[in-house]
Amino acid sequence: MGESFDRGSPYGLHRVLDPPGVLPQRARRLDPDPRPYADEVVVDVERLNLDAASYRQLRDEHGSGAAVRAAVLAIVAARGKMQNPVTGSGGMLLGAVRAVGPDSPLGLRVGDRIASLVSLTLTPLRITDALAEWDGESEQVPCRGTAVLFGRSIAAVLPADLPEPLALSVLDVCGAPTLTDRVVREAGPGASVCVLGGGGKSGSLSLAAARRAGATRVVALVPTGAEAAAVRSAGLADEVVVADARDPVAVAAAVGAPVAVTVVCVDVPGCEHGAIMATADGGTVVFFSMATSFADAALGAEGLAKDVRMLIGNGYVPGHAEFAIDLLRAEPGVRALISGRERQTLRP
Amino acid sequence: MGESFDRGSPYGLHRVLDPPGVLPQRARRLDPDPRPYADEVVVDVERLNLDAASYRQLRDEHGSGAAVRAAVLAIVAARGKMQNPVTGSGGMLLGAVRAVGPDSPLGLRVGDRIASLVSLTLTPLRITDALAEWDGESEQVPCRGTAVLFGRSIAAVLPADLPEPLALSVLDVCGAPTLTDRVVREAGPGASVCVLGGGGKSGSLSLAAARRAGATRVVALVPTGAEAAAVRSAGLADEVVVADARDPVAVAAAVGAPVAVTVVCVDVPGCEHGAIMATADGGTVVFFSMATSFADAALGAEGLAKDVRMLIGNGYVPGHAEFAIDLLRAEPGVRALISGRERQTLRP
Repeated sequence: MGESFDRGSPYGLHRVLDPPGVLPQRARRLDPDPRPYADEVVVDVERLNLDAASYRQLRDEHGSGAAVRAAVLAIVAARGKMQNPVTGSGGMLLGAVRAVGPDSPLGLRVGDRIASLVSLTLTPLRITDALAEWDGESEQVPCRGTAVLFGRSIAAVLPADLPEPLALSVLDVCGAPTLTDRVVREAGPGASVCVLGGGGKSGSLSLAAARRAGATRVVALVPTGAEAAAVRSAGLADEVVVADARDPVAVAAAVGAPVAVTVVCVDVPGCEHGAIMATADGGTVVFFSMATSFADAALGAEGLAKDVRMLIGNGYVPGHAEFAIDLLRAEPGVRALISGRERQTLRP
Repeated sequence: MGESFDRGSPYGLHRVLDPPGVLPQRARRLDPDPRPYADEVVVDVERLNLDAASYRQLRDEHGSGAAVRAAVLAIVAARGKMQNPVTGSGGMLLGAVRAVGPDSPLGLRVGDRIASLVSLTLTPLRITDALAEWDGESEQVPCRGTAVLFGRSIAAVLPADLPEPLALSVLDVCGAPTLTDRVVREAGPGASVCVLGGGGKSGSLSLAAARRAGATRVVALVPTGAEAAAVRSAGLADEVVVADARDPVAVAAAVGAPVAVTVVCVDVPGCEHGAIMATADGGTVVFFSMATSFADAALGAEGLAKDVRMLIGNGYVPGHAEFAIDLLRAEPGVRALISGRERQTLRP
């Protein structure tokens, strides 16, 4: 392609083949040509991490590992991206930067080892090794091929000083602590904060972020005594309380005096009302759980006549990858909790 | 009941009979006893306005008006509230204050004619006239009986100077302009604002609220030329643009320079990405539409690497009823648009 670069859309609209005009995430088919437009980055792919829901569906539908592998190859060949047509979900990828367009704003250099922090559902992808090294038996897919990052995409350079699985665990949820930091600082010095699901990945990072941002009362709410013990020994909260986050009356009783900021990191439905009741009038609830129901939150606050600000947890906050990795490096308690979760699942 | 009052929960937990411990909205059965607890208000009901989705379901299931009437009576007798067991929705009520507990914080007096601004799904209700004046043919239900408002409930005194249907239309969506006012003031003087669905009830009120709050560029986005003409002649926006709010590329093109605040009042699914794209980095999107998908908003902002604050539109903001009624009184354009919508539906 020589020295000239085509100009594209920072949202990747120029990569959408079918139907034209939609955003890449909604497209049936993308153009995965591995030549970068002026603001793009092309990546040599090393691994795909399929979304857990997507892998489960493929497994249920196709049975054997070999059949799952064939299904993934067929999807990527047909769509130019790995988006499960049933679940709609994708995953993320790891790789090394192969080419950088002259106008790319991502700050990456050729050779950088990166994780993409935008979904595979919008990432142009071409597979060149027929997934020969993958047996189809796990959502971790060794893969050779190329992927494209747009001007508006997000990627994180993998830190050299941390085990790769640990870094990926943290990068996967890095928006939560970063937005928690912002909201707690906005609430002012000495704010009180409660994290529902404080024992999980995003929860433990959010606890650490809240304390760093100046919160003076940090409450972790967890579902079991075992998880409470783990959070206590990690030293991330001033108070650790046990309650079912789906029971609003129990949540309010466990938290006691309502807090200025409640962060919801419990990935089960039905936690909206408890979060609202735990929060003081004039306070803020940040919903990170993808199991959050918009209607239950909106009608719940109205039904309780509760003047709380309710934020949809945006997975993108500038600087989020660096912020979360820094927390992991600086807070032994976070690292202990997250490493512990990799070894055993504390919640059902 | 003499001079003594029992103390209850401001959330009405003391009225929950089955299952104990849940909030009234989630309860199968409430206690509708018309004797007020210390912080309660009891209302002589004049009319129920059933939620449109609920009425449609009852009509589909039961057929004749008489059968629908019997079904509503059976639900209220069994549950102590009017909550459709299929749709889960309720509606609102009109009535006159019959008794006020000594600790009620609602500021109501015996005889006040009020509309309840909390859902019927959490309001203890007893019907005493067997709905004899209702033919079951409309969601407007003339009704004699009693209802209970909790300490944390919300009710608005009906303004004497406005037609009742017009006042009710506005009270139904009064949270939208009030929260818009707050968000636009937070954004600072001279903010730019776009209202998706600016021709509707909540949309036109939000346009007027944005301008009053100091916005200097107010954009209304509407779906049709006819609606655009109506909004233009009402004079509520600086710019009126026509686009399908579900088409993010079209929305971004129609709005032009991204705005500081986008307010979503379009009650159809799929408007999240357009709202995000129309908003400047660092700006705010307020989602009032109950058709909003939490996941589409969260993943959309992440996929677009857009640092926008996304608010779940809380239907309760202190002073919202007075604020919205004041807007209606002060802005002839709002009144013209809303009255016009009662006569004809501009959107399909």
